[in-house]
Amino acid sequence: MHALIVLAHPEAKSFNGQMAEAAKASFEAQGHTAEISDLYGEGFDAREALMHFPAPKAPEYFSAMTEQRHAVDNKTLPADVEREIKRLERADVVVFQFPLWWFSIPGMLKGWMDRVFVWGRVYTSKMRYDTGYFRGKRAVVSITTGGPPATHAPNGRQGDMDMELWPLHFALNYVGFTVLPPFRSFAVGVGPENDAYKAMLEGYKARLRDHLSALDRLEPLRFNGWDDWDANGQLKPGAPSHSPFMRHPG
Amino acid sequence: MHALIVLAHPEAKSFNGQMAEAAKASFEAQGHTAEISDLYGEGFDAREALMHFPAPKAPEYFSAMTEQRHAVDNKTLPADVEREIKRLERADVVVFQFPLWWFSIPGMLKGWMDRVFVWGRVYTSKMRYDTGYFRGKRAVVSITTGGPPATHAPNGRQGDMDMELWPLHFALNYVGFTVLPPFRSFAVGVGPENDAYKAMLEGYKARLRDHLSALDRLEPLRFNGWDDWDANGQLKPGAPSHSPFMRHPG
Repeated sequence: MHALIVLAHPEAKSFNGQMAEAAKASFEAQGHTAEISDLYGEGFDAREALMHFPAPKAPEYFSAMTEQRHAVDNKTLPADVEREIKRLERADVVVFQFPLWWFSIPGMLKGWMDRVFVWGRVYTSKMRYDTGYFRGKRAVVSITTGGPPATHAPNGRQGDMDMELWPLHFALNYVGFTVLPPFRSFAVGVGPENDAYKAMLEGYKARLRDHLSALDRLEPLRFNGWDDWDANGQLKPGAPSHSPFMRHPG
Repeated sequence: MHALIVLAHPEAKSFNGQMAEAAKASFEAQGHTAEISDLYGEGFDAREALMHFPAPKAPEYFSAMTEQRHAVDNKTLPADVEREIKRLERADVVVFQFPLWWFSIPGMLKGWMDRVFVWGRVYTSKMRYDTGYFRGKRAVVSITTGGPPATHAPNGRQGDMDMELWPLHFALNYVGFTVLPPFRSFAVGVGPENDAYKAMLEGYKARLRDHLSALDRLEPLRFNGWDDWDANGQLKPGAPSHSPFMRHPG
């Protein structure tokens, strides 16, 4: 098995950076191979824009979908995007390691999605959801918060973290991944590196190793698929909703 | 009244770019002043990182909160961040114009939030939610989709757009804004600029003008405030939830 860890944190020595290293070490200790895509460390640009396309079809009017499709057809995808897709293609499992910022994922990771989930290569109108490109591969989020568990609970001030993660989880399902339950580290702070911090970090590392060595025993999140929607793209009467963002009318 | 339009689209001539111009013209036609913050056009960097801070406190270990606070205390915020905060400070109403990408906002706009909503300046542990910095100002989203209304309805395949917008709306409330209902443009396409496209664009422009000239008549979204939460930051028993991401247990 080969694992990819996508790390979206601006400091390599941070809690997030160390969790990414721990995830890699955990896979390797199980006899697997693993690599880290360190978005900040590698200088990934989070902005989907004309400047990245070496041979654009319509430089006078930039459309992301038009240029993505054209670049796929002509094998002229941006080199960093091609590299990220190849990393995803050779991975059997992908771990996303990042902090919760503003009730969502960091702009860096969102921009990675905007650029790397390429129309015509990673998805098409037919190749998505349960017919998605990456089906058979697993994805799992490892997220950190500054606040304590209470404020991130379903009745917490900051909001239910499962809801905040849904757009990412749903996008991963859209491109075909089997999505496993997330791993959560709370109140990770920003240092200093005193004994309490080190003990907390080591505790979370051990629990992340447990999480990642039990992938087969984790129950995947459920999603709807093509059979659940009618010709208008709406939930068929009687079909269950597996999405907190989708419900029957009334 | 002064209006700020924050535009997050990589093509100035796009539907989004033209809607931003229409919003500006609409305010000006009402006798107000208006300006556009064109994030792509001005080359805004969507990555919160050490490189932006001219006089960091701890360059050997980057913490966003530490550096933001330090830069506020020493008046050394990144110039582009200072510019964006000043734009928000002088605005009475802020319009956010962007496309729905991957069930969320573009990485560019998310990165703008990560960088511009500065700890110690735009929010503190006391100055947030109904005691937020920008209270008294109004915010309104103008969003575009590639898909038709049916798939973005509450029972649509893509998910309820109100849920997808909630993290942004909630963050705007967190920093004190009164949040008005969003304006939605569906199936805006990527050109070509034929007569049908032009008619659609003109129709949406007219409806956006109506939306923005009726701000006083729009019912703001409701949010919870400090009185609704207990000492642990959880919803008090009996308090109503105004958030689709927060619910009482059980």
